[in-house]
Amino acid sequence: MDDMFVRNAWYCAGWDYHLSQGQKSLLARKIAGERVVLYRKPDGGVVAMEDRCCHRGAALSLGQKEGDCVRCMYHGLKFGPDGVCVEIPGQDTIGRRARVRTFPVVEKNNWIWVWMGDPDKADEDLICFSVGPGNPDWNIKTSEMRINANYRLEMENLADLSHVAFVHQQTLGGADLETRRGWTEVNAIHTVLERGLNTKYCIRNVPVFHVLTHLFPPEARFDLEFDINITIPLNWVTHIKVYPAGTEGVGRQLISETYTVQTVCPEDEDGVQYYYSWGESKATDFPGVSDLLRETLDKAFVEDKTMLEAQHVRRAEKPDAPMINIAVDAGPNKMLGVLDKMLREEREEREAIARVA
Amino acid sequence: MDDMFVRNAWYCAGWDYHLSQGQKSLLARKIAGERVVLYRKPDGGVVAMEDRCCHRGAALSLGQKEGDCVRCMYHGLKFGPDGVCVEIPGQDTIGRRARVRTFPVVEKNNWIWVWMGDPDKADEDLICFSVGPGNPDWNIKTSEMRINANYRLEMENLADLSHVAFVHQQTLGGADLETRRGWTEVNAIHTVLERGLNTKYCIRNVPVFHVLTHLFPPEARFDLEFDINITIPLNWVTHIKVYPAGTEGVGRQLISETYTVQTVCPEDEDGVQYYYSWGESKATDFPGVSDLLRETLDKAFVEDKTMLEAQHVRRAEKPDAPMINIAVDAGPNKMLGVLDKMLREEREEREAIARVA
Amino acid sequence: MDDMFVRNAWYCAGWDYHLSQGQKSLLARKIAGERVVLYRKPDGGVVAMEDRCCHRGAALSLGQKEGDCVRCMYHGLKFGPDGVCVEIPGQDTIGRRARVRTFPVVEKNNWIWVWMGDPDKADEDLICFSVGPGNPDWNIKTSEMRINANYRLEMENLADLSHVAFVHQQTLGGADLETRRGWTEVNAIHTVLERGLNTKYCIRNVPVFHVLTHLFPPEARFDLEFDINITIPLNWVTHIKVYPAGTEGVGRQLISETYTVQTVCPEDEDGVQYYYSWGESKATDFPGVSDLLRETLDKAFVEDKTMLEAQHVRRAEKPDAPMINIAVDAGPNKMLGVLDKMLREEREEREAIARVA
Repeated sequence: MDDMFVRNAWYCAGWDYHLSQGQKSLLARKIAGERVVLYRKPDGGVVAMEDRCCHRGAALSLGQKEGDCVRCMYHGLKFGPDGVCVEIPGQDTIGRRARVRTFPVVEKNNWIWVWMGDPDKADEDLICFSVGPGNPDWNIKTSEMRINANYRLEMENLADLSHVAFVHQQTLGGADLETRRGWTEVNAIHTVLERGLNTKYCIRNVPVFHVLTHLFPPEARFDLEFDINITIPLNWVTHIKVYPAGTEGVGRQLISETYTVQTVCPEDEDGVQYYYSWGESKATDFPGVSDLLRETLDKAFVEDKTMLEAQHVRRAEKPDAPMINIAVDAGPNKMLGVLDKMLREEREEREAIARVA
Repeated sequence: MDDMFVRNAWYCAGWDYHLSQGQKSLLARKIAGERVVLYRKPDGGVVAMEDRCCHRGAALSLGQKEGDCVRCMYHGLKFGPDGVCVEIPGQDTIGRRARVRTFPVVEKNNWIWVWMGDPDKADEDLICFSVGPGNPDWNIKTSEMRINANYRLEMENLADLSHVAFVHQQTLGGADLETRRGWTEVNAIHTVLERGLNTKYCIRNVPVFHVLTHLFPPEARFDLEFDINITIPLNWVTHIKVYPAGTEGVGRQLISETYTVQTVCPEDEDGVQYYYSWGESKATDFPGVSDLLRETLDKAFVEDKTMLEAQHVRRAEKPDAPMINIAVDAGPNKMLGVLDKMLREEREEREAIARVA
Repeated sequence: MDDMFVRNAWYCAGWDYHLSQGQKSLLARKIAGERVVLYRKPDGGVVAMEDRCCHRGAALSLGQKEGDCVRCMYHGLKFGPDGVCVEIPGQDTIGRRARVRTFPVVEKNNWIWVWMGDPDKADEDLICFSVGPGNPDWNIKTSEMRINANYRLEMENLADLSHVAFVHQQTLGGADLETRRGWTEVNAIHTVLERGLNTKYCIRNVPVFHVLTHLFPPEARFDLEFDINITIPLNWVTHIKVYPAGTEGVGRQLISETYTVQTVCPEDEDGVQYYYSWGESKATDFPGVSDLLRETLDKAFVEDKTMLEAQHVRRAEKPDAPMINIAVDAGPNKMLGVLDKMLREEREEREAIARVA
């Protein structure tokens, strides 16, 4: 497991609305193999700590909040937001080892971000840009899903959209040959970033996303411009503009401008929690269309889930089976390369520390 | 797993009616540890190939048929019925490694048979004789069941019918002592075949199969003649004739003449898919009786399933616990001997090849 | 597993009413890793034997009773109450190895007790004292529950009741600070016994058990006297007396006198079967109150189950994570010490025997 997840990264633990002020509102998450409990303090701030009491391993997420502390409701140990035990029922003194690990945590753009590595390296500027449901310029709608597949398979999925032509025929893509050609023959411009990948392309002269086609004449064709940023561990932030096919330049009609912002939080080697959103800019929005986009993602990601879970089973059964590369793997391979480079660097750093010690 | 299944054998993948002409009618099976997808071509022929795309391991069974090809609906690779990739969306050339394994497949007597070993050895004459639902001389009714037990336990079960007196008291056998004695004290004549076992015997002076007794006077007694052929991996073809007890010779009344034809397809070490049938000859059939036979097997095999699954758990928990042999094990031990001999020969062949290489 | 359970101990297999005279009434249990089948003979006595036929490993618990024998309903082998096979259908002779292991079994105080070790050491005097539902002086009500946690976690739970203040706030304890202080600041007197632990204390000046508070004025306060005996493997017999707070001596009012008698039967490393009871003495009983006590345990043990199963998952995920000791661990640590000493002694005895052999 140590070799499977980047430690020094911000992991998304969910939407801000998952954390209420309720006394028992303690969010139990598994993030990169670690049990984490999150809760909101009376002042609105968020705490993330190991979901495992230092006494006997009980789940702190079954506890309750008292002020800005959390009390383990097995034997009553109370921990401050810094993880230090401040009360042990039945005794007066508290030893130095009575504490649980805490994690740096930040709310940004309506997402909760937890840093799973060295706290000294927890730079908030490393949190990916995104557009949240609270952004007044956009009408962003949110959702979530559990998928029982390794997050590398999700990474392959998100780093190449040619699969829209096949997996998502009934939702985003379309069964016609124009759509298939449009989504599979893209001239993607990939730019490898320090912790991610930027990909830009335009899908030209295709029908609009399948679920929207009834809103336009059957013969209507469009150009779809994508600007996609993927960052470690697996954040996917995409800006999409839709124009009438073949139009160019400043004065052309902007039919739809949306952001879809998605993060995949790996729980362990066999599953991820997926938080996602989609919505129009206020300039192009009209009633019900952002709701339709969110609804469409819910359906499309069930299509992905079916495909990815079957793929996960097959990969696990024959981990060493040969695979071939094809043209559309350029994006996935670059992004997996970024991930593997970071994993290698962290492993080398751990080994160097172990040699010194 | 390599040592658990005979490779060079025809495995039953189901009934012919499992394979329709639907575009999404792709049958996902696990056979002897391998994922196999089966589909019917427009010309009626059947294709069996590895259910695992050579690109990224997606399930081809989630794909769709196009002509006599199958298209992986993840990234759109299209494969001919020979497993060779004929289209990769997004690129013009196709490498030699772009192919999936195919398996020899034959339909015979309404069953689909897949050869899991060396294709050069796939001799159709090795497919067991059977009587299918399409046979105009018989009224064969079909069914199927999943059982979570190792197929060797099924082999022990099918190679000795003394258990009918106990497991199947409420369906095939009967709780009376005559029936018990009849089914347990048979003078079986076993003949070991190259890839199986033939067993012949007559159960004398017993009530008929339990579920049929209400059709006859309470005192009616019968002789039940069995001719059973078991072949590798686990096909069970049985011809049963029922006569009034004690009658002999040419002119005696043939009350019932049936075939019950069953195959157990091992999926992996922990489970099998069971396809089975039973029915009267047209000469002895009368309305509803073959339906009753099929219905009886459904109930009887739930009785077996309960027993075998509990046995499987116990065998797995204590694989080395001592066991004793009793008289009725003669058939099971001969048939397990045939299986173990074939497994040993295949293992030796693999090792010999490995030494040369 | 050999190192996880004490062999030479009486394990509770359930309540006497679990064993009826029905022909198919065969109780399948897993006790300390062993499959055991129990049944009641026509004379009322109880038999416990390995739930695994010596022939092919079938479950004897799927068999049927015939006289004081049990017949395996796979191939019909019949076993006497001493485990010796007395009939093998299809053959006349019975070999010496045709037998299954039996276990010493005793009914006492409406519980069924099975000895899992050396039969020569099965001393009935080692069965713990208890008060059963059949005891005419008490109104004991019984219940049971499955908990998916290792029995050592149950031992920690039962050997310290400070958790009542937290886990059982809504049932036994109470959310007020008086109750919390009362349950966590006890002056327990622990006495280590040869095979267990006696603990005595009085919880002073607290409200009564939470679910009983509506029966008294809000300001009523009580002293709760506990006398607790825990014995190996995990029997918990507790005598509780409730007095008005602050009263002392012979003449004071005895408001409630109850016994709650509980045993935890470890099935394997991941789960236990829990049999428990609670009830008033006839002197203090009044209509419905013992039913309420039993109902309260059902609710309270669901509270424990939630806590223990989450704890079990966390312990299994990180078995070597450090833990700290606190004051209330005195009881649990003493009782775990008794268990570990017995496990060590049995291991040393096995090793000594192995060296001789």
